[in-house]
Amino acid sequence: MFVNSKKVESSSSPSSEYDELPAPSEAGSANAPLTWPPGVHRVCLPPRQTTLQKLRRRLLEIFFPDDPLHRFKDQTWLTRLVTGVQCFFPIFKWAPNYSFKLLKCDVVSGITIASLAIPQGISYAKLADLPPIIGLYSSFVPPLIYSVLGSSRHLAVGPVSIASLVMGTMLSEAVSYTTEPTLYLKLAFTSTFFAGLFQASLGFLRLGFIIDFLSKATLVGFMAGAAVIVSLQQLKGLLGIVHFTSKMQIIPVLFSVFDHIDECSPQTIVIGVIFLALLLTTRHISSRRPRLFWISAAAPLTSVILSTILVVCLKSKLHNIQTIGQLPKGLNPPSAHMLHFTGDHLALTIKTGITTGVLSLTEGIAVGRTFAALKNYQVNGNKEMVAIGLMNVAGSCTSCYVTTGSFSRSAVNYNAGAQSAMSNIIMAAAVLITLLFLMPLFHYTPNLILAAIIITAVVGLIDYEAAYKLWKVDKLDFVACLCSFVGVLFISVALGLAIAVGISVFKILLNVTRPNTVSLGNIPGTQIYQNRSRYTDAVRIPSFLILGIEAPIYFANSTYLQERILRWIREEEQWLASHDITDLRCVILDMTAVTAIDTSGLDMISELRKMLDNRSLKLVLANPLGSVMEKLHKSDVLELFHFEGLYLTVGEAVSDISSSWKDQP
Amino acid sequence: MFVNSKKVESSSSPSSEYDELPAPSEAGSANAPLTWPPGVHRVCLPPRQTTLQKLRRRLLEIFFPDDPLHRFKDQTWLTRLVTGVQCFFPIFKWAPNYSFKLLKCDVVSGITIASLAIPQGISYAKLADLPPIIGLYSSFVPPLIYSVLGSSRHLAVGPVSIASLVMGTMLSEAVSYTTEPTLYLKLAFTSTFFAGLFQASLGFLRLGFIIDFLSKATLVGFMAGAAVIVSLQQLKGLLGIVHFTSKMQIIPVLFSVFDHIDECSPQTIVIGVIFLALLLTTRHISSRRPRLFWISAAAPLTSVILSTILVVCLKSKLHNIQTIGQLPKGLNPPSAHMLHFTGDHLALTIKTGITTGVLSLTEGIAVGRTFAALKNYQVNGNKEMVAIGLMNVAGSCTSCYVTTGSFSRSAVNYNAGAQSAMSNIIMAAAVLITLLFLMPLFHYTPNLILAAIIITAVVGLIDYEAAYKLWKVDKLDFVACLCSFVGVLFISVALGLAIAVGISVFKILLNVTRPNTVSLGNIPGTQIYQNRSRYTDAVRIPSFLILGIEAPIYFANSTYLQERILRWIREEEQWLASHDITDLRCVILDMTAVTAIDTSGLDMISELRKMLDNRSLKLVLANPLGSVMEKLHKSDVLELFHFEGLYLTVGEAVSDISSSWKDQP
Repeated sequence: MFVNSKKVESSSSPSSEYDELPAPSEAGSANAPLTWPPGVHRVCLPPRQTTLQKLRRRLLEIFFPDDPLHRFKDQTWLTRLVTGVQCFFPIFKWAPNYSFKLLKCDVVSGITIASLAIPQGISYAKLADLPPIIGLYSSFVPPLIYSVLGSSRHLAVGPVSIASLVMGTMLSEAVSYTTEPTLYLKLAFTSTFFAGLFQASLGFLRLGFIIDFLSKATLVGFMAGAAVIVSLQQLKGLLGIVHFTSKMQIIPVLFSVFDHIDECSPQTIVIGVIFLALLLTTRHISSRRPRLFWISAAAPLTSVILSTILVVCLKSKLHNIQTIGQLPKGLNPPSAHMLHFTGDHLALTIKTGITTGVLSLTEGIAVGRTFAALKNYQVNGNKEMVAIGLMNVAGSCTSCYVTTGSFSRSAVNYNAGAQSAMSNIIMAAAVLITLLFLMPLFHYTPNLILAAIIITAVVGLIDYEAAYKLWKVDKLDFVACLCSFVGVLFISVALGLAIAVGISVFKILLNVTRPNTVSLGNIPGTQIYQNRSRYTDAVRIPSFLILGIEAPIYFANSTYLQERILRWIREEEQWLASHDITDLRCVILDMTAVTAIDTSGLDMISELRKMLDNRSLKLVLANPLGSVMEKLHKSDVLELFHFEGLYLTVGEAVSDISSSWKDQP
Repeated sequence: MFVNSKKVESSSSPSSEYDELPAPSEAGSANAPLTWPPGVHRVCLPPRQTTLQKLRRRLLEIFFPDDPLHRFKDQTWLTRLVTGVQCFFPIFKWAPNYSFKLLKCDVVSGITIASLAIPQGISYAKLADLPPIIGLYSSFVPPLIYSVLGSSRHLAVGPVSIASLVMGTMLSEAVSYTTEPTLYLKLAFTSTFFAGLFQASLGFLRLGFIIDFLSKATLVGFMAGAAVIVSLQQLKGLLGIVHFTSKMQIIPVLFSVFDHIDECSPQTIVIGVIFLALLLTTRHISSRRPRLFWISAAAPLTSVILSTILVVCLKSKLHNIQTIGQLPKGLNPPSAHMLHFTGDHLALTIKTGITTGVLSLTEGIAVGRTFAALKNYQVNGNKEMVAIGLMNVAGSCTSCYVTTGSFSRSAVNYNAGAQSAMSNIIMAAAVLITLLFLMPLFHYTPNLILAAIIITAVVGLIDYEAAYKLWKVDKLDFVACLCSFVGVLFISVALGLAIAVGISVFKILLNVTRPNTVSLGNIPGTQIYQNRSRYTDAVRIPSFLILGIEAPIYFANSTYLQERILRWIREEEQWLASHDITDLRCVILDMTAVTAIDTSGLDMISELRKMLDNRSLKLVLANPLGSVMEKLHKSDVLELFHFEGLYLTVGEAVSDISSSWKDQP
């Protein structure tokens, strides 16, 4: 088969070993012809490295691109210890300099986000099919832990809509909360544990780049799709329908609405629509004027209070309205005994944990980075993962479900002037007071208000502008966005996400499989060679065809590139023939953008060289990058070029080859 | 969530529309500051194209990179018709000029490959668990069809070991030939039909690049693994064991040998080892001296004849030796009625068809290309796929199983001096005579000789040299090779292949996720800027940090690149501080190797710009490529740069910015 082809085609001269080369600084001379013409620069090999050194460098670049230990260099042991502690517990970094002035700001912002976190916590827990109290528990312990471990100053931690939705969907497919509440709770806490474990492991193992594969385009589509489904699901609460599907695709949800339209309670609808309109209006005002952020921040709690009062006052008349009901008073009960690592549902909890873990991590990291960039400080992705992960592991032992940094609450936190993670502590304190003393007040809070709060929150996830910008700037990104939107709406949340990631990866592969090749021309009076179709003043050099290859040369594109280069040559020859101009004598490949090459690519180059040799065409490479040069050297390809035909720039190649033709016409 | 971050962070000024720009040739002026300094070249936008034009160009590049219609341009209708017919039936291209001299060569090579094809056909059919006669049928019809449709002059068509092995493995898992021979045959023919359909569709739909994803490294490992397993499987025939596993992993095969070691027949072993040694020796001689190719070409048939005579003569004494037995005389019976497109096994046949189709296509195309390159003609991949596909579809209706161009026989064909596809016709004629008249002669051919022939053939698939070269040139390619080897040996053929493809794709993604960034310096006396660690004479430019980014900027690497660039800046500043040199004032990103950018990349650039602005560092881009420039323009990023900070070369950026500093110190 073709692998053996080498045996047939090449009389394989043994390649000179790397080790026999002179030291790197003189390495150029090894590649140089004996008489190197003046004005032509040598193409050097990169400094010699052993396989182990290369592997080490590569691994460092993969896992420690930010050189996390740079702070520890050239320091005393004490400084190192302090830096180490501060590194793992950022609270020790900001706490010593914490002032009363900062505290004032943090108290304001902390109370503001608490007023948002309490109703949202209750609502999101319902989105995850969990009892509302779990949402409040999750707004108490995780923020405290994050304030010790987290490095973002503006992240407001607690339950979020997307992760709640996904957890609810995935668990409900196997177990129903209404029929088996204890089992469902166990699964939820175990999933949370796995989510935290996965997040922390990603951080510890410095594999954080995995979440980068959820591209922005994918997330825009995914979140819009999820928002649409969540909003439609809320029709249950808003219309007062009792029998409702637990499925998450758009079609069963719509059917559910129409099938049970007779169950609608007019009172519920009227009150629901009024509050929804109120909430949406405040949201609109705040988004127009960021200074009025407190309007939308205060609206949910105000609505909860107003609607509860309304229900209590008109209790006799509004008998059809469903309310939250009794909520237990008191702090988070421990739940470590509810974590189950055996049994039928282990695979489900791991899957749910990883999915919600990835999603909440993506949200948390992105939100943290956004606000860090606005205030010009840096958030370390891997460290944040550890913080969020440990906070979820701790949460799973204290009756919390998956939490992360929420975008909406973090934005409020930022706008309210939060200065440090202390605002999370203040918020947790407010939740604590609620848990201890105010729980009975929620007894008559109607479900419809929770639905209205959820809709208001998720409507913000539908980002038309971002989608339009994707369309404008990058059509393929838009397709990825659209696919994840449609996938989430019609297939399922997890599969929609998988499809979108697949498309994003496919896009990368497509760019590698079908790379751009351009014909370069000289800009007169300079040594600049540029794309002829883009720079109209760039001119053809007689007898030369200069091609820029704009991609690494891999197995996936070597065949294509060979065909494409031959086509360029054919078209150039046809053009020359039709214009009666001198023949083509030399093809220069500008390798500046060829960032890597593999064995298939090397074979392609040597095969191309042979083919062009047979047609009396010279093939020359200009400016191969370090890694490419090294591989050209290690394989037999450079010998095929007789160490000639390598130039540092296209300009030098053209002038040197032209002058050699003048010498021997 | 982060998608909304734009709303918070930017006061989004509406971007000027592409349509309002001047024509492409003047486009540069739109981006230029009002007073463009002398000696600085404008960075142009690529020529304007509508979305439709771009889509068309992209699709053409994906599906028609070779511009297949170029032959039809500017031709009369008659010429077009003739070209079209010649295009679909290459026989009409070479037949008119066919001479007696060429025929002589083809007869010699045709008979030579027939002497190899007949014993190999019988052996490979056994490898696929099919009756031996199917192997001979498959060496008759497909070569005839290929000689009409195929464009390679040296491809010798027939059954091949890998595809036979894979088909045997996959079908045997569901159905056993010994218990249900008719069903097994049906499945084999149906799989062949699907293989052909898939191959022809790939060609028609011009999706041939899919097979490029089986990289050479993958195939080296895969074939070595398959060869080891096939060889071990042949111990059954070579040792005369009766009860043998049909599994394909190394462990059950080895267990099978040791469990049934008592069934071994000493006579079989002695004769088998002698013939195996003979065959391996002839193979060794021929591989050392290509001129003596006929020794290994003639050896299998000679061995078959010798061993058959031996068995016939010593019939009374060699009673333990298993022989092929009765074979039906006559031509291929039609088998179209045996194709079944319904029932339980449909999924299996489709899967088997696609897997064997891809594998045989890869082998056929690679072999065709190898010999085409040696004789300097071109084989069109997509056309070959159609030819091989139609040949298999036709084969499935005439009692043939999957066939393709075999490497070993094609090499013999080439060395024997084949000049055209006529050698396939001659071979088919020889097989025809065998089928019609010589079948009874194979009655007493011992199975052990078939095992020896298979081992000799597959041993050549273990390519140490290629594996060593992979290790030497590209460690990651070697890992892919190793994984596919181990995967095939210990897991399964299909999964081993899938793992290897996965690793190859992972390698591409890894290169995208963790791209190289280098710090550039100026080579004194020139405008050349090169990697400082590679070119020791390249010097730092005071106050400047020039970074070359060697990858497209995608969602998968934008976070990494941002962190990495900030680290470069930090390290440069530390270095400058420790050497008491002037501060860093400007960062130049050399975008020459940034072949593409997506929306995440654009956000990264603008965020980086803002961060550096806050630190009073200027950020400048040098030489963005066409597609990148277009996206920079379409998004708001260029406006963020106030249309400044874009230069065509690093040299111009350095000189222009330096001189602007001199003007306003």
